[in-house]
Amino acid sequence: MSVQQLEQFRETIRNQLDRTVDFWLKYSHDTQYGGFFTCLGRDGQVYDELKYVWLQGRQVWMYCRLYQTVPRFHREDILQAAKAGGAFLRKHARVSNSSGQWKCAFCLTRDGRAVKVQRTIFSECFYILALDELSRVTGDKDMQLEAEQVMAQLVHWVQVDPSGLGRPPLPGDTPTSSMAVPMMLLCLVQQLSEARGPQEALKYQSVGQWCVQQILRHVQRGGTAVLENVSAGGQELKGCQGRLQNPGHALEAGWFLLQYAAQWGQQDLRDTAITQFIKQPFHSGWDVEHGGLFSFLDVDGLCPTQLEWSMKLWWPHCEALVAFLMAYTQTRRPELLESFTQVYNYTFKHFPDEQSGEWFGYLTQDGKVALDFKGGPFKGFFHVPRCLLLCENLLDQLLQKDGTRAGPGPV
Amino acid sequence: MSVQQLEQFRETIRNQLDRTVDFWLKYSHDTQYGGFFTCLGRDGQVYDELKYVWLQGRQVWMYCRLYQTVPRFHREDILQAAKAGGAFLRKHARVSNSSGQWKCAFCLTRDGRAVKVQRTIFSECFYILALDELSRVTGDKDMQLEAEQVMAQLVHWVQVDPSGLGRPPLPGDTPTSSMAVPMMLLCLVQQLSEARGPQEALKYQSVGQWCVQQILRHVQRGGTAVLENVSAGGQELKGCQGRLQNPGHALEAGWFLLQYAAQWGQQDLRDTAITQFIKQPFHSGWDVEHGGLFSFLDVDGLCPTQLEWSMKLWWPHCEALVAFLMAYTQTRRPELLESFTQVYNYTFKHFPDEQSGEWFGYLTQDGKVALDFKGGPFKGFFHVPRCLLLCENLLDQLLQKDGTRAGPGPV
Repeated sequence: MSVQQLEQFRETIRNQLDRTVDFWLKYSHDTQYGGFFTCLGRDGQVYDELKYVWLQGRQVWMYCRLYQTVPRFHREDILQAAKAGGAFLRKHARVSNSSGQWKCAFCLTRDGRAVKVQRTIFSECFYILALDELSRVTGDKDMQLEAEQVMAQLVHWVQVDPSGLGRPPLPGDTPTSSMAVPMMLLCLVQQLSEARGPQEALKYQSVGQWCVQQILRHVQRGGTAVLENVSAGGQELKGCQGRLQNPGHALEAGWFLLQYAAQWGQQDLRDTAITQFIKQPFHSGWDVEHGGLFSFLDVDGLCPTQLEWSMKLWWPHCEALVAFLMAYTQTRRPELLESFTQVYNYTFKHFPDEQSGEWFGYLTQDGKVALDFKGGPFKGFFHVPRCLLLCENLLDQLLQKDGTRAGPGPV
Repeated sequence: MSVQQLEQFRETIRNQLDRTVDFWLKYSHDTQYGGFFTCLGRDGQVYDELKYVWLQGRQVWMYCRLYQTVPRFHREDILQAAKAGGAFLRKHARVSNSSGQWKCAFCLTRDGRAVKVQRTIFSECFYILALDELSRVTGDKDMQLEAEQVMAQLVHWVQVDPSGLGRPPLPGDTPTSSMAVPMMLLCLVQQLSEARGPQEALKYQSVGQWCVQQILRHVQRGGTAVLENVSAGGQELKGCQGRLQNPGHALEAGWFLLQYAAQWGQQDLRDTAITQFIKQPFHSGWDVEHGGLFSFLDVDGLCPTQLEWSMKLWWPHCEALVAFLMAYTQTRRPELLESFTQVYNYTFKHFPDEQSGEWFGYLTQDGKVALDFKGGPFKGFFHVPRCLLLCENLLDQLLQKDGTRAGPGPV
């Protein structure tokens, strides 16, 4: 792979990141009530005013991360938008029930009234992500403290007692470990301890180790498959749930593990991440007929029951780009850059919308746009810009270390 | 349309019904624990042992209906299967929570332990459907009484106080009328009062009238659209939820209303059903490019957020077949038989599996099989055989009244 090729990747990626940021700055801000519209049509029109807490939190985090780490995004309008989003979340996201327990809502009205509360931990996860990153920008210690307190509550729900989530125990509901849970917690451990010194890192060390152990238990069938759900004891579960594979999730877990392995100097874990969570899920998840990653697969080759199993969604491709480029940057194994290029070619051919900016999110198996909106209940300002930012940074690193001109400067 | 054409329809439909019944008799019975496997692969293999209460109840109902009304299905194996399904449901479906309230589970393990309870009324609906129809076969008065008691509970949840469903009220959650609720209740009113004399019909008369009124409130935009969700006051709701159209549901409501109109001699209602619930949703829901009915549409022509919106599912086509053939039988308007033929041609070309029997359930927009199983979490022994049975009966009626030979005899 030539330096010119890497520079071309970086140029496209920078350009796509700029266009994506512009799109959300232009169309998603609710200047009346604060927070963000995330249901944005192909051309940016707001087609629904509901505010999904996952996406509110993710957008605050993303704006703050761009503001903090990328000189060209260190702009007042981005800072103000992040602050307005954070204020909206703090004012409205937490709702109390009749027993005085609280949860973060899943979805709010435009003016902040709770519409729906899920009985899972994910709204809280993105609430923490937003508050912690925003507190780094503003220096607000109370906000950072709140993020840490919510994290303590999360860890309690996950490790000690889930009853506060509100799901009554049922005799047939066998305790299950869904990979999303330790993945999200590991992401938060890295968020809360990042660049805060050894003491803070130590504070979350055991939770981090627990997350990694939990994630590794999803490698099943003698190392040939990552399964999305296993029993609480780390065994394969019966039925569709037990056979489910989610290639995008495995790839995302892969780069989370790579970051963790680099932080703690664990080379074995790095190699496991690359072999089991990146290369294997990529090879089994890639559609050799039409290209692109399947959304779900059944490890026995049966038909998944998810109606969208064969559709090509934007976010698994984002995770694959980050995973392969990070793995290559850490190891310089050429086959990893080749796989990155394969994903890159599919992704940039199919997802970006040259007409109106941003990316389509949902394609048919054969690569046609199936849903043409840019934001929806599960697609916000997150996977696309996070992927582009990480890839731009990794390419900066690669081009610098290779002794070539480093472009307009690393961030 | 020639008599030969109608006879050809009937021949195909009878043959498809026989094959469908054979498929489920052969593959779905759990002789160890009772009840039915409903996750059946293309060739009938059980790929998941979970027992979905909706589908258990529907299969009991369908077996009983076939046993009761069709001489060639008045068979001991069908009766025994229905009884075993009913026994499984009565033993396991109802679960109590810590406050002593009960709900029907949504999903059970193979041996009947509750896995999931939904905070809606639909599991209870199919529980009632099963028990009432089975009590008609067995003459079990206790069972019929239980069906009526559960119905009283349902009506209380829907009309008086929904708190027993377990969904805590939230300030942003505006009371919404989803068309599924009055449709299901109307179906149950017809089930519980059918052929039980005027007193029983009177008992459910006011609930039935309420259901019809509720359904009619979903006709919006000056009569040009049926919307799936409206406000409790019958107004259009904001956002995606308010703009959602579900052509299959509208068509199903259409033939429920036709049955009701025929029972009570309401010709205006019959005409409304045909114009607003059958012809209009069919024309706006039909894919002129590839044929077949869309699963969801947005009344303003925006992209729905349901990932499967453009997929062609089996059940809306079943509802369309019944709706047009019933409407034609009641009115003899030729354009209704033409539309039936249009749906028939698409349906029988795309859904039946000549190789292994039964129908595929999920096609891509352009008509390829997207998921190849015959039964799954939402596809059981119900829509296909109910449609085929009703169409066979309607064709028997048409062919008899036309003075032609009536085939092997009406049922």
